[in-house]
Amino acid sequence: MRSVAVIGLGKTPFGAFPDRDLRSLAVEAGEKCLHNGNLAPDAVESFFLGNFAGPSFVGQNHLGPYVSSALGIRGVPSTRIEAACASSGSAFYHAWTEVAAGVNDIVMVVGVEKMTSQTTARTSEILAAAGDCAGEMKAGNTFASLFAMIARRHMYEFGTRKEHLAAVAVKNHANGALNPDAHMRKAITMDQALAGKLIADPLNLYDCSLISDGAAAVILAPLERAREFTSKPVRVLGIAQASDFVALDQKDDITTFPAVRRAAEKAYRMAGVSASDIQFAELHDCFTIAEIVATEDLGFAPRGQGGPYAFEGCTARTGPRPINTSGGLKAKGHPVGATGVAQICDVALQIRCEAGARQIPRHSLGLAQNLGGSGATCVVSILGEA
Amino acid sequence: MRSVAVIGLGKTPFGAFPDRDLRSLAVEAGEKCLHNGNLAPDAVESFFLGNFAGPSFVGQNHLGPYVSSALGIRGVPSTRIEAACASSGSAFYHAWTEVAAGVNDIVMVVGVEKMTSQTTARTSEILAAAGDCAGEMKAGNTFASLFAMIARRHMYEFGTRKEHLAAVAVKNHANGALNPDAHMRKAITMDQALAGKLIADPLNLYDCSLISDGAAAVILAPLERAREFTSKPVRVLGIAQASDFVALDQKDDITTFPAVRRAAEKAYRMAGVSASDIQFAELHDCFTIAEIVATEDLGFAPRGQGGPYAFEGCTARTGPRPINTSGGLKAKGHPVGATGVAQICDVALQIRCEAGARQIPRHSLGLAQNLGGSGATCVVSILGEA
Repeated sequence: MRSVAVIGLGKTPFGAFPDRDLRSLAVEAGEKCLHNGNLAPDAVESFFLGNFAGPSFVGQNHLGPYVSSALGIRGVPSTRIEAACASSGSAFYHAWTEVAAGVNDIVMVVGVEKMTSQTTARTSEILAAAGDCAGEMKAGNTFASLFAMIARRHMYEFGTRKEHLAAVAVKNHANGALNPDAHMRKAITMDQALAGKLIADPLNLYDCSLISDGAAAVILAPLERAREFTSKPVRVLGIAQASDFVALDQKDDITTFPAVRRAAEKAYRMAGVSASDIQFAELHDCFTIAEIVATEDLGFAPRGQGGPYAFEGCTARTGPRPINTSGGLKAKGHPVGATGVAQICDVALQIRCEAGARQIPRHSLGLAQNLGGSGATCVVSILGEA
Repeated sequence: MRSVAVIGLGKTPFGAFPDRDLRSLAVEAGEKCLHNGNLAPDAVESFFLGNFAGPSFVGQNHLGPYVSSALGIRGVPSTRIEAACASSGSAFYHAWTEVAAGVNDIVMVVGVEKMTSQTTARTSEILAAAGDCAGEMKAGNTFASLFAMIARRHMYEFGTRKEHLAAVAVKNHANGALNPDAHMRKAITMDQALAGKLIADPLNLYDCSLISDGAAAVILAPLERAREFTSKPVRVLGIAQASDFVALDQKDDITTFPAVRRAAEKAYRMAGVSASDIQFAELHDCFTIAEIVATEDLGFAPRGQGGPYAFEGCTARTGPRPINTSGGLKAKGHPVGATGVAQICDVALQIRCEAGARQIPRHSLGLAQNLGGSGATCVVSILGEA
């Protein structure tokens, strides 16, 4: 397999944009990305579109060529991948596969979601389709209630406290406040985080990520060709996608995600690094408890200790291993199909020393973890300086 | 790139099955396929699910792990691909890529769609999402009306007649009558075909494919390992996916599909064959005119001569180049996400001499052509004896 590099990246701001449609967001991110990688559309040899629920949110399907043709990319394979909230992480994995295996040299990935045109009730229903609709969702669950059960069990097993969850929210809001592209640029206090409106006990409003519109894009190329396009290539050192049951009730233990552990193990092995080598990460904080569990499953914190690990500041921007310097899904926003590629962009921006006010000093080896549903899909990517 | 073989295949019957859900259909095809390839679920290293509109038809998304975990396939990458009616053709292409490039050895592809639980009006709306909803569909089109325009223009340009369209329907119904798994096993006469209820002038009921439930599955492996699993491997000699505009009004000429021409050209080159070498084919006859245009774009008939080519019996089961011996989408049925893989199965069954009453004598080199929307995606696969 060949070494692969990210040679271009582009993002829209994340937020609620009533006057923007899905395609215009995807095209904005794609055009910024082509410009960033100094590439014309006809240089792209293969195109992947990560999108969770365009047909349900905006009534448009067949989104691969729908977006790529609008970018001026025609003729080449153009494929939409759907893997719930890990849709564009998975698209990135398959794009990497094509370049690493020598199938294509220049492969583009765009992730997009347009969510804010629906009512909250309809949005919850659309999101629920990432879980087991005939089982856990028919029984009355929402994603908030599934992650509330995970949080409750984590509290019972390990003594995790609401203050631990709130610490994740406070940190990610602080980071988001420094990110000009974040959906919510508002720092909050621990008292505010603890006093949020209850959504699904023990999760309150500040434990939940945002419903957002947005898009993100990257272009991949063989590392040996990367400097034809950019002076700042970012190397993909390790990557893996893994799967598990969709329904939470089929799992033996809901306080850990086997798909995350498996993807991490494979990605670490490919990169030749261990968890302790990772300097910073973008993790899938769809709910605060998800970031806590991820820090454990990735080996950053010991099992059961993800809560104190966050509470003690280990994951702060100024701490030993910053997590979600972008603001994460919690503050940057979570346009579902865009999230996986946006995480790659945010890790790459740190590595390229282009993260502005949220730039961290140790930024040569970062990780992105993109989770689908309540853990049925996970993609872990490890990026480093080229 | 390594040579790749189909080592196992499995299908459900196609039809309207009110008491079957999406997952049970996909699992039935998958289990038949594993059994056919003498494989246990844990031998599968990567899984692809081709599905067009599960979220819209049955309210379930995240369909990769939703299906693979029910087949006992866990841990490995499990990815859903959506490319309108070419969803599982595209899934097959990406699975082939992984095996050919040496990323994985044993890769499974399942295609599935459960369509008949919705009203006809809602089904039309869901299908319309494969076109440009904000443009051509908002203007009042359905897929039948788009293909009616293609037929009308083909008639104007080339003198194609309604009898030419009807000849395709008569042939495919005759073939479907011999296929025990076909949705419609009813031979029709030319008079019947011409007298069908008008749907979108000049297309009548018999020019339109069926709304069906069903699933199909194949497993791929490196050719050099194929005989570990089966005595009848089928070799993938050439394959390509190509793309074009989604909206018909963006195309220069609606009587030809550039994505089909491009995919065919690449697949022929990879296989080292030309159109004249292809002995038989499964083509994407979502409407009778689509089969006629495909015979031209693939080089079987000269440009504009696809109508007479069908009318004169060249594509009959007993003719020089049989097309759609399975009955095609017209009679076998068209569970959208299953169609691409079902075509691969039907070509492979002929090559393996397992096509029963519809077996043809010259069956060593066949082609499958899977079209998405009104031509924005096309996958062409060329299969032969191993």
